[in-house]
Amino acid sequence: MPYVVVARYRTLPGRQDEVLALLDTMAEASRREPGNRQYRVHQSTEDPRTVVLYEEYGTAADFEAHCASEHFQDLVLGRVVPLLEEREVLRLTPREEGA
Amino acid sequence: MPYVVVARYRTLPGRQDEVLALLDTMAEASRREPGNRQYRVHQSTEDPRTVVLYEEYGTAADFEAHCASEHFQDLVLGRVVPLLEEREVLRLTPREEGA
Repeated sequence: MPYVVVARYRTLPGRQDEVLALLDTMAEASRREPGNRQYRVHQSTEDPRTVVLYEEYGTAADFEAHCASEHFQDLVLGRVVPLLEEREVLRLTPREEGA
Repeated sequence: MPYVVVARYRTLPGRQDEVLALLDTMAEASRREPGNRQYRVHQSTEDPRTVVLYEEYGTAADFEAHCASEHFQDLVLGRVVPLLEEREVLRLTPREEGA
């Protein structure tokens, strides 16, 4: 069953460009994971410090593998999270789409 | 420039199945709009009352047209919103994706 993660970050003041550049690198690495289907990075049009990730994996286990990856540990936990004021992660099941 | 909307709803207690069925109908109608690129409905794996929409439009004007549509006015404002306890809408710009 496909597994979607929506992460919403608010960066520390003035750190959004640094966070976005790190997440661009993270996106490239994540898209190479065999279980990854999408990894998109977005910035709010209203609050430049609000950043949203939309990630899709084949299964929940593929997301667990993502979280165990070196790029997640180094880039997200090691470098992005210290630049955030808030971080919220939603784990989701997409509805099946009709024909 | 592509325009993404992430909406996060929390339904009133016990009303999530009704909300999801209405949003499935809304998704079909929205995908037929000329400016719509994606309309996906999701439910939280942790809190069944939390529902997330991921919508993509060609431009901000296409999203405005979506909000002016009969299906948005009738289904979302008329029927879904009264079944919600919380509703938060984020307007986003996706980062360009490298080659």
